[in-house]
Amino acid sequence: MERSADVLVVGAGLAGLTAARELVAASRSVLVLEARDRVGGRVVNMDIGGGKIVEMGGQYAGPTQDRLLALAADLDVATFPTYDSGMNVMHFNGKRGTYAGGGIPRLNPLVLADAVIAQARLESLAKKVPTDAPWSAARAEQWDGQTFESWARRNTLSRTAYQLLALAAEAVFAAEPGDLSLLHVLFYSHSAGSFQNTIATTGGAQQDRFVGGSALVAERLADRLGTEMVKLGAPVSKISVRGDKVIATTAAGQFDGRRIIVTAPPGLAGRIEYEPALPCWREQLTQRAPMGAVIKCQVVYDEPFWRADGLSGQATGDGEGSRVVFDNSPPDGSPGVLLAFVEADEARRLGREAAAHRRAAVLGSLTRYFGAKAASPTDYLELDWQQERWTGGCYGTLFGPNVWTRYGPALTAPVGQIHWAGTETSPLWCGYMDGAVRSGERAAAAVLAELS
Amino acid sequence: MERSADVLVVGAGLAGLTAARELVAASRSVLVLEARDRVGGRVVNMDIGGGKIVEMGGQYAGPTQDRLLALAADLDVATFPTYDSGMNVMHFNGKRGTYAGGGIPRLNPLVLADAVIAQARLESLAKKVPTDAPWSAARAEQWDGQTFESWARRNTLSRTAYQLLALAAEAVFAAEPGDLSLLHVLFYSHSAGSFQNTIATTGGAQQDRFVGGSALVAERLADRLGTEMVKLGAPVSKISVRGDKVIATTAAGQFDGRRIIVTAPPGLAGRIEYEPALPCWREQLTQRAPMGAVIKCQVVYDEPFWRADGLSGQATGDGEGSRVVFDNSPPDGSPGVLLAFVEADEARRLGREAAAHRRAAVLGSLTRYFGAKAASPTDYLELDWQQERWTGGCYGTLFGPNVWTRYGPALTAPVGQIHWAGTETSPLWCGYMDGAVRSGERAAAAVLAELS
Repeated sequence: MERSADVLVVGAGLAGLTAARELVAASRSVLVLEARDRVGGRVVNMDIGGGKIVEMGGQYAGPTQDRLLALAADLDVATFPTYDSGMNVMHFNGKRGTYAGGGIPRLNPLVLADAVIAQARLESLAKKVPTDAPWSAARAEQWDGQTFESWARRNTLSRTAYQLLALAAEAVFAAEPGDLSLLHVLFYSHSAGSFQNTIATTGGAQQDRFVGGSALVAERLADRLGTEMVKLGAPVSKISVRGDKVIATTAAGQFDGRRIIVTAPPGLAGRIEYEPALPCWREQLTQRAPMGAVIKCQVVYDEPFWRADGLSGQATGDGEGSRVVFDNSPPDGSPGVLLAFVEADEARRLGREAAAHRRAAVLGSLTRYFGAKAASPTDYLELDWQQERWTGGCYGTLFGPNVWTRYGPALTAPVGQIHWAGTETSPLWCGYMDGAVRSGERAAAAVLAELS
Repeated sequence: MERSADVLVVGAGLAGLTAARELVAASRSVLVLEARDRVGGRVVNMDIGGGKIVEMGGQYAGPTQDRLLALAADLDVATFPTYDSGMNVMHFNGKRGTYAGGGIPRLNPLVLADAVIAQARLESLAKKVPTDAPWSAARAEQWDGQTFESWARRNTLSRTAYQLLALAAEAVFAAEPGDLSLLHVLFYSHSAGSFQNTIATTGGAQQDRFVGGSALVAERLADRLGTEMVKLGAPVSKISVRGDKVIATTAAGQFDGRRIIVTAPPGLAGRIEYEPALPCWREQLTQRAPMGAVIKCQVVYDEPFWRADGLSGQATGDGEGSRVVFDNSPPDGSPGVLLAFVEADEARRLGREAAAHRRAAVLGSLTRYFGAKAASPTDYLELDWQQERWTGGCYGTLFGPNVWTRYGPALTAPVGQIHWAGTETSPLWCGYMDGAVRSGERAAAAVLAELS
């Protein structure tokens, strides 16, 4: 045995580091086992020179994400508002238009009414899904037996209104409407407060950013724990329970504890070998927990030229390349950075292409939205999360039909000494950094209650 | 390195053993690596004494399953017809009725017409799905964006007609209609010739059985290969490609070859570690390939008492326990055996209960169908495939919405020296033993073409 601790934690993302912090605060010994050679998991900074960074993973914070914001404040990581001044760009069906940020897109009024009514219906249904037990909603089986696509087609009259719902699914889930159970979309929306919260900038989930990058939160958490407590390059291949001991086998040796908290997404957690084998409901859940498909691109310019054109840098559209764009410049606006998401089917398609082809497609879309200047960046960075072995995709786990109603409780129910955390297990802000923090706090509290 | 061979095969089920047989016939050296301590995979005999066996996994053969039948004939494994004389039992909504086997259930004529029309529509759509490329159907995206449940609800007027479609889904897929993409159901039906073939006894997929049990096919295949060529107790945890070598790491040492054929279901294949990592389309496919939920129960009586009552032993119903029952007695009719399937939601529910509770539920259902004698068997055997670590569920892989259209080609496309087989990869009789045999033949031919 390399080392022993009261509690082993699998994964040094926000969930695992938060759990470790809580356990240490309660005077328990902890060892965090991380597969990668860095902490942060789905949160990662990348250097763009001049002391500036861009974030290649989770980066936003918004109202009611209280646990993430409290944690960041405690670690002296400040926030600043996402740039949200000026006009937003839309480019659908070959036509470019602009509308006031936070305002209403200029669409045919009938189409607009169609989309607004569909969203209002969705919001109303979402409120009926208990976020701590989605399977207990009165109509859970009915909602879980169909895809979000089926619902969205039935609840829109115009092709454009459907396209807007599909675009929202791509932006929020990195998935197509047909990938998702309607119940999952309703749960996820309620978990974020509302569907509107998931898509909104000011007032919603994209409202704020972290000075120095979201990864600072994870890095400072790890720094406070100390290098002795966080073991990098230690992917866990096996978890064995023997009597009152839990043994984790990793590429860097074996470790043991009295409890273990697994924070990997459920699909990845299912690839760990368990001895004895997990009960079949947990096992079959992990077979039904795929990750989304997203390539996150950061496109760097000398300056945020779109601002001078009266544009916010936010854009949506329906063509090749990126369909969801934000101004992602540092707080001082230098350099200019456009964050271009390539999502769902487009990520699956462009993920198979050569890097130069993908870059051209992304720059092509930015040029449609922001004009010729967008074609000549000074730098272009991308991270294809589909290729990330230790995450398996992003932003998070997508439940297709009949998973929540058949296997939902297995997502969080401990199996003996094995506890589960990670943003997927959070009733609030599931899929977000805030959900990860909440899940770490919840799992730590459960373990402490057992050890006391 | 423990041993080298031209070709490594992962899995000693029908696919792997067939592939090995073809390779050996072409004078290639082969090593089959099997996780379990037996061959057969999803095909397994269980001894019930007196020189008789029952089959706890795949067991039937039917018309057009030519490759399985040819293989069995070559190995001197004979077939005999499934007992299909007398009346079938139906027990729905608290009412028991009987109808002629192969005939038409006695239902309200409007309900019957409703069900018949829905099935005819399904058959018509299924013919439009190319079995070697389901994603290329003209309406593939539309069919793949919805669940079979959505389609079945829209295409039936009566609750009973919907229930009959749901029961068929449970019987054929060990899944609920909401678990399945409509496109998957259409593909699977066409792959078997028709939906009717999948549910029919005489004339369909349940027409014939193997004398001595289906496992004889696997066992004789393995015997001909010899114990040197089939390594039991060797679960493959890692596949590394280094130059022109493929190295398989197992619990029983390392083995190398020039090619490897992985026959595990895609979800389980995704749990093997690959070096270098697989391309993301294959990786994300394996996240979206869950297995069905079935508990197969064999209930043994002194004699097949139902035959004397003019019953075929075939029954369907809607209550607790088993909803699909067959006469599964040996060729000489002694002892009497009822095969009771517990499927989908009922398997998920009863899989969590104590064995005595499950047995009582199954015997309760048999008593509803066949009367009081069914309550007192001489033996009761069951295999919960949900608990089988090296299969992960049965009968096979279920594709939910948007998998075939987004990841379908990755099911069979080799990745360098790594080839994929297993019944899931067969365009014909996918999910059946015949599909497994076909997949082994196809993969062996592809490997031979590369090595020649």
